[in-house]
Amino acid sequence: MAESPITPREKDFAAWYQDVVLQGDMAEPAEIVKGCMVIKPNGYAVWEVLQRALDDRFKATGHQNIYLPLLIPQSFLKKEAEHVAGFAPELAVVTMAGGKVLEEPYVIRPTSETIVGHFFAKWIKSYRDLPVLINQWANVVRWELRTRMFLRTTEFLWQEGHTAHSSHEEAVQETLRMLDVYAEVAEDVMAMPVIKGAKTQAEKFAGALRSYSIEAMMQNGLALQAGTSHDLGQNFGKAFNVQFQTNEGKLDFVWQTSWGASTRLIGGLIMTHSDDKGLVLPPKVAPQKGVLVPIFRKDEERAQVMERATQLARDLGAHVDTRDGLTPGAKFFHWERRGVPVVFELGPRDVTSGNIVMKRRDTGTKEVVPQAEVAGKFAALLETIQKDLYTRAKQRLKDKTVLANSLDEVKSILNDVTAEKGGGKFVMVHLKDDPQNDAKIKEFKASVRNIPSVDEYDGAGKCILTGETVDRRVVIAKAY
Amino acid sequence: MAESPITPREKDFAAWYQDVVLQGDMAEPAEIVKGCMVIKPNGYAVWEVLQRALDDRFKATGHQNIYLPLLIPQSFLKKEAEHVAGFAPELAVVTMAGGKVLEEPYVIRPTSETIVGHFFAKWIKSYRDLPVLINQWANVVRWELRTRMFLRTTEFLWQEGHTAHSSHEEAVQETLRMLDVYAEVAEDVMAMPVIKGAKTQAEKFAGALRSYSIEAMMQNGLALQAGTSHDLGQNFGKAFNVQFQTNEGKLDFVWQTSWGASTRLIGGLIMTHSDDKGLVLPPKVAPQKGVLVPIFRKDEERAQVMERATQLARDLGAHVDTRDGLTPGAKFFHWERRGVPVVFELGPRDVTSGNIVMKRRDTGTKEVVPQAEVAGKFAALLETIQKDLYTRAKQRLKDKTVLANSLDEVKSILNDVTAEKGGGKFVMVHLKDDPQNDAKIKEFKASVRNIPSVDEYDGAGKCILTGETVDRRVVIAKAY
Repeated sequence: MAESPITPREKDFAAWYQDVVLQGDMAEPAEIVKGCMVIKPNGYAVWEVLQRALDDRFKATGHQNIYLPLLIPQSFLKKEAEHVAGFAPELAVVTMAGGKVLEEPYVIRPTSETIVGHFFAKWIKSYRDLPVLINQWANVVRWELRTRMFLRTTEFLWQEGHTAHSSHEEAVQETLRMLDVYAEVAEDVMAMPVIKGAKTQAEKFAGALRSYSIEAMMQNGLALQAGTSHDLGQNFGKAFNVQFQTNEGKLDFVWQTSWGASTRLIGGLIMTHSDDKGLVLPPKVAPQKGVLVPIFRKDEERAQVMERATQLARDLGAHVDTRDGLTPGAKFFHWERRGVPVVFELGPRDVTSGNIVMKRRDTGTKEVVPQAEVAGKFAALLETIQKDLYTRAKQRLKDKTVLANSLDEVKSILNDVTAEKGGGKFVMVHLKDDPQNDAKIKEFKASVRNIPSVDEYDGAGKCILTGETVDRRVVIAKAY
Repeated sequence: MAESPITPREKDFAAWYQDVVLQGDMAEPAEIVKGCMVIKPNGYAVWEVLQRALDDRFKATGHQNIYLPLLIPQSFLKKEAEHVAGFAPELAVVTMAGGKVLEEPYVIRPTSETIVGHFFAKWIKSYRDLPVLINQWANVVRWELRTRMFLRTTEFLWQEGHTAHSSHEEAVQETLRMLDVYAEVAEDVMAMPVIKGAKTQAEKFAGALRSYSIEAMMQNGLALQAGTSHDLGQNFGKAFNVQFQTNEGKLDFVWQTSWGASTRLIGGLIMTHSDDKGLVLPPKVAPQKGVLVPIFRKDEERAQVMERATQLARDLGAHVDTRDGLTPGAKFFHWERRGVPVVFELGPRDVTSGNIVMKRRDTGTKEVVPQAEVAGKFAALLETIQKDLYTRAKQRLKDKTVLANSLDEVKSILNDVTAEKGGGKFVMVHLKDDPQNDAKIKEFKASVRNIPSVDEYDGAGKCILTGETVDRRVVIAKAY
């Protein structure tokens, strides 16, 4: 695809995002399938890194992967009342198959709690069968009206964990453990600071007792829910009759959890770190951490430069851009837009002097380094970039978070900002967890993102709407 | 799930297969979704190993992963005449979404050539854009009438490679290169010998110029097509108008290939190596290569055995089965059914003597080994098992392959056997590649599996049906 200019963030954040996604070879809209996208090579390679980071941690916490059917009998959705109410408007329905009209239609899974319920009822008979700790990597379909690549697409890729436990306490522990795993991957791997916390009752998953999320702040100050973990209580256990014999010989329904993270993470990654030149990837998620661009004009320089470039690239684990017919400048531009953390330049004079040029994608800083030291310097630089990207994002989160103590204050902060141009804010407010209060906030096209697990502010205070005492401030923001 | 007996192969091969799949924790039927299965933890873990083996090789041969939409506009299927004829009867159709009847229904992808064609037309303009070498890991749906876990399911997991080239020669090279990749994974990783070759015109992929397959022999002598690679010619290029400017400045249609391998491989793996005790996994595909079962009766033995067991298991990279309330015998039985290649026993006397017992899953042979030497012996044993499994399967393929020189001979061989009891054969026959000849063979509920790439028999000969000279024998067999 031809390369075109990237709209600056200041001018139009949404257009900037779309340009970065396209020019970074991350994805493109699949306009012929409503609200879908094609995940392109660079985007899919980042997804593979995130999959590995998550999957390793799921396995380390005792989970096993399985695969459940894509299609779910329509009647299954109806077994849990809140669940069907939440998902019915978004379902894609298969009514014909094998040339015949189906007696009972199937829906394409929007999520798999119901089919999991069906199989848990077959697999779980006794407390000895518990806990059941499973996960699946899958595609799901939710017929969304407004879509945006990675952030909200009709079909998306995700993992969904599903677990069953013999006590509520254990299920809650699991829910919070997996929330911690998401936070760890977001912060340590993606360099994307997040706020862990409970969703309000109004914002919880359809069918959950309690939902938890990690919320990240994008560069424009908007919030992105980047992962959720649900304490399902016994709701699905009762809906699908998943009963087990307790160790006292009684019958009880299982306590379940579910938790998911999706290709949406990639949208968060892009909007956390990228700049007006294109994609910026933290080294830990970059499929290609370094690329070496050889520079030569004459044929006699070519052999000399290429030989040294090949040796050095092998030592560095870097890719050598050997493409013919492209200027070095075009190559730098190419890798810059794809977010490669470090690009090396090696020309005839570098071969002679024993140096090499090392350029950081995030700051654009160039450094001339002796070839003998470059491997160590490169490794150190990757660590520095990873740390710096996190620090910058953390500082931004701090800078754009404000406290408010009245509805008027909330209103003026939320109405004042033009988030499209980067003026969004996280507003920390004492607010009681009550759907009526959530509704009031929605009037400003914002929402309660979560009730933080850790209070970093001033503890208890009076709800700005009801005056009742609540034990900490919630996060209010406009969100994707 | 409770463990139940495994039907012996001699008694009922199909029942044996089902038992091995269920008892090995590989999969179970999802009876509520027609023809689907749940891939259970052990089965999915094997799939992950196979994915890694394939994906590493795809990347090493220059392919990049992407992800395309699950849903395809129904009209796309109709653009290639042979393609729609082949797939129309098997389609699952989404007619409603988001609460509304769709203007144009979508089909769930049965394979992605058509949507790939659409995007190739957008991406490819010039010979400089070629080759395009992509692959996707995905689920597909084909509404099959008769299904069998792993071997043929309505939904299955697979990878599908799609490439575009500027010449037919290059596309043919790619087709054969990927066939080689499949053969290598089958033979070197799965220890499953295969015959590489071209499908007949009657058996080729709907829309291909020429299809190639790897064919494996199951223990009952039936054939299993374990991977296919297609030379699509310019058929999809023309159907989707994928034109590029050649380096002479002319316009031409691209030459495409596609190639796929699926969860069906796991069915082949099971039917190649497993026995009447359950699953047997070659070490290279076993998610868990070794398990250590500690043996103790008294509490004072427990601490002593567990300490040594934990140390040894760490050195061996083996899992220690610490489950309470299960006898060592029940544990051995458990791991045997799951196909773990080597199980270690360690009891109080072993701790004293400095020995450990090492048992091979494939032969059942036990060996007492000094603990100081067990790591090396274990590594060597895994290699031996891998090699022996391949050798046994190769010998079986040889033993059950026969030559036939007339239709009567073919008929008597194919009618004589009761494949359900293990009497299936590969029959090597001189037969002209003509759909009429394929039809004749179909009368015996068998088919031409492929025309081998390498002739291991007697070269050219006269077609048993038409008398015309053909350059080598084809493989005829009953097949899954």
